[in-house]
Amino acid sequence: MNYRMIARILGLVLLLLAALMLLPLGAGLCYGESVAHFLLSIGVAGALGGLLLCVRPKSETLYARDGFAAVSLAWLAMGALGALPFYLSGDIPVFTDALFESFSGFTTTGATTLERVEDMSRGCLFWRLFSQWIGGMGVLIFMMAVMPMNGEHSMHIMRAEFPGPTVGKLVPRVRQTARVLYRIYLALTVLETLLLLAGGLDFYEALLHAFATAGTGGFSTRTGSIAAFGSLYVELVTAVFALLFSTNFHLFFLILVGRARSVLKNEELRWYLGLAAFASLSIAWNIRPMYGSFAAALRHAFFNTSMVMTTSSFNTVDYTLWPPYARFALVLLMITGACAGSTCGGLKLSRLIMLLKAARAELRRMARPRSVVRVQMDGRRVDGDTIRAVQTFFLLYVLLILLCTLLLSLGGRDTATNLTASIACLSNIGPGMGLIGPAGNYNVFSPAAKMLLCLVMLLGRLELYPILVLLSPSTWRR
Amino acid sequence: MNYRMIARILGLVLLLLAALMLLPLGAGLCYGESVAHFLLSIGVAGALGGLLLCVRPKSETLYARDGFAAVSLAWLAMGALGALPFYLSGDIPVFTDALFESFSGFTTTGATTLERVEDMSRGCLFWRLFSQWIGGMGVLIFMMAVMPMNGEHSMHIMRAEFPGPTVGKLVPRVRQTARVLYRIYLALTVLETLLLLAGGLDFYEALLHAFATAGTGGFSTRTGSIAAFGSLYVELVTAVFALLFSTNFHLFFLILVGRARSVLKNEELRWYLGLAAFASLSIAWNIRPMYGSFAAALRHAFFNTSMVMTTSSFNTVDYTLWPPYARFALVLLMITGACAGSTCGGLKLSRLIMLLKAARAELRRMARPRSVVRVQMDGRRVDGDTIRAVQTFFLLYVLLILLCTLLLSLGGRDTATNLTASIACLSNIGPGMGLIGPAGNYNVFSPAAKMLLCLVMLLGRLELYPILVLLSPSTWRR
Repeated sequence: MNYRMIARILGLVLLLLAALMLLPLGAGLCYGESVAHFLLSIGVAGALGGLLLCVRPKSETLYARDGFAAVSLAWLAMGALGALPFYLSGDIPVFTDALFESFSGFTTTGATTLERVEDMSRGCLFWRLFSQWIGGMGVLIFMMAVMPMNGEHSMHIMRAEFPGPTVGKLVPRVRQTARVLYRIYLALTVLETLLLLAGGLDFYEALLHAFATAGTGGFSTRTGSIAAFGSLYVELVTAVFALLFSTNFHLFFLILVGRARSVLKNEELRWYLGLAAFASLSIAWNIRPMYGSFAAALRHAFFNTSMVMTTSSFNTVDYTLWPPYARFALVLLMITGACAGSTCGGLKLSRLIMLLKAARAELRRMARPRSVVRVQMDGRRVDGDTIRAVQTFFLLYVLLILLCTLLLSLGGRDTATNLTASIACLSNIGPGMGLIGPAGNYNVFSPAAKMLLCLVMLLGRLELYPILVLLSPSTWRR
Repeated sequence: MNYRMIARILGLVLLLLAALMLLPLGAGLCYGESVAHFLLSIGVAGALGGLLLCVRPKSETLYARDGFAAVSLAWLAMGALGALPFYLSGDIPVFTDALFESFSGFTTTGATTLERVEDMSRGCLFWRLFSQWIGGMGVLIFMMAVMPMNGEHSMHIMRAEFPGPTVGKLVPRVRQTARVLYRIYLALTVLETLLLLAGGLDFYEALLHAFATAGTGGFSTRTGSIAAFGSLYVELVTAVFALLFSTNFHLFFLILVGRARSVLKNEELRWYLGLAAFASLSIAWNIRPMYGSFAAALRHAFFNTSMVMTTSSFNTVDYTLWPPYARFALVLLMITGACAGSTCGGLKLSRLIMLLKAARAELRRMARPRSVVRVQMDGRRVDGDTIRAVQTFFLLYVLLILLCTLLLSLGGRDTATNLTASIACLSNIGPGMGLIGPAGNYNVFSPAAKMLLCLVMLLGRLELYPILVLLSPSTWRR
């Protein structure tokens, strides 16, 4: 392990975090609030970051395990320090709840313990939704975009933080790739802000909702979430942008460089659109009796399909009251998620497609043991190492959900709540079924359970491997 | 496809089925019942079998896909014809219910639609429990043991019918292996019958319960199942024999040939005993408040852990009333099952151990990409093909449970019922949670849902691949 280099990266992340807190501080000042809690938080993050930067690395070489460790520790530090403003301001008086809110924000989960969002100060509310924007694309990728780093080794960091089974560099240099990603992210966020402004939201709410949509986080400035605006337009803008932010950013890049035709051939995109359409229509048909007309049912079915699939968690209706098919279909979409290389959580469709293709290949091999069967995706062969990594990912994903559910059930509550809390936190969605549906919140869990769920959210956001590698003893053995 | 050879195997199976029906016919005669329905069923099975045997195969060569097809079709035919006595006797007047009972019997699931078991005629009740004994070890393996077959190719049949990720021949010849397996099976069944007789059961009930335990099926001659006997002794004998029948039969063979020491080193056995002990103790601790003392709680916890893990489904108490941890732990055991190479269902522990070892190896590879990591089991290296097949098996297992739940939820009912019905049928357990707990039955499902569950039970009993290979279009393409 290159501890000195890891310390340096941690230091940079903390300084960056301190700098990012200037925005909510500014928002607080605009609304004439006290900002002492932000000053103190910035001081702590800045001082810690400065201290860590005093460590001089002997070598700049980063191996895969160093990248995993740096990213995991950076996210743990961000989650912990991000909780300070909530706690110090008194907006969230219990520290474990402040931690939960902070981890839920950075991991873009959107699970909350707050009963009434409107009671929060404007500065903290800004921080709460802004953290989802920061966590969406990833703070280390941001760091790479703005600070000079050794390109060769920063790939390991990108691989650890960026969602998806394989990480392709859009352009030859990692730093340029990070910049392109952040430009697309920023442009879409600005566009959504403008569209929400056009829908009658004030600048504060439009910007914050765009932040929360961009990270597919789903925190809102209102307790009633999107329903509080009572506007079909706002609902549609949110749903469509959630779908856009859950599309592989690689595809936007291809459009920008004039290769739109190859976008249409992308297998994951086809599955994504097909699955979203099928789920919306079948759920609409299932909930039709509850809403009088198919059109009204389709509105709610489309919005909630988009929200759950993109692992956002804005809400308009309480889907826990829907019939069994609609509910279970939503739970399945909670696990699948949307596209790799986007800000959304969950398994990701490209992994699922690979798994299904590998399974089909296996069945062919069984029927004709001597035949040679290859797995292809987008016309290119998927190598055995990738398939094995994805199969292991699926196994660990399922096992973590089951293990978390088992641990949560030690504290009582119904299995629907425990199971969907595990899924919703691992897939970075937020609300689940049972007591933690859109109408409930995570206060039904004990402080210990909330800390477990923080870890699960982080496991989900970093796609398991960085945290698991960090926790596995063999990593530390020499 | 060697259609003629498949037809020949099917014919032999049907003749064997007709012969096996002579036993319940005899039981019916002993109790002075009308046996016309058995005579008719034997006539139909015998005539169909005889007709199929008229087909003369041009070649005796069986490929893997022929083996899969022969086994799948044989089991479909057995399930269908096995339903005849139930239906023709009027004991189960609805044909889909008779089919459900027959498939549930042969696949050793133990799910039932009967409200009162005691209303059934003695002959049919014999057939109901005897079918679990036939299905436990497998009818084609029985056929191999008693009829001369080409050894080289019958391995494909054994592989398709015998549970577990790898099939090892105990002795060099397949036929001898089949004979050894059936001798152990028979000896244990006789032993349990004697012990149950010693416990005060009459011969009819002792024999039938031994049949149902042997197949880890769990059908009973009483509506109240084992609880109806009100005997701790009977409970213990049942639980211990269920555990024995769910132990890899290979280990009994090793003991017989004097290699008991290598049995103790068997990794799956260690996990099996460890998991059973941990589950019993932790569940007992969890349900302690319900039963006054830890000893009383441990009695129920041990019995139900044994029942669920061995995928038997005798019951004494309604575990759906237990607290969340106990309930969810049982659901997890429903998925794991016990040992490969036994009569139990579920994923099997050896698969789970391989999956966990492969995952650990993957995490090591991530941390140190250049290191060589091998997966070992019982001191021997597990090759990549086996791991890949097991990983695919896990994926398909999970996907089938989710797909079945989604389809069942189209008919309404709570998700706990739909989900655990899917698990309980795929793992060949029987009762689940919700409406289909020990106190409920599968009559809450529509005829279409019951037919779906029959297919799921068969998928589970034959461990997915034979049926999936048969259903996959590439098998039939030339």
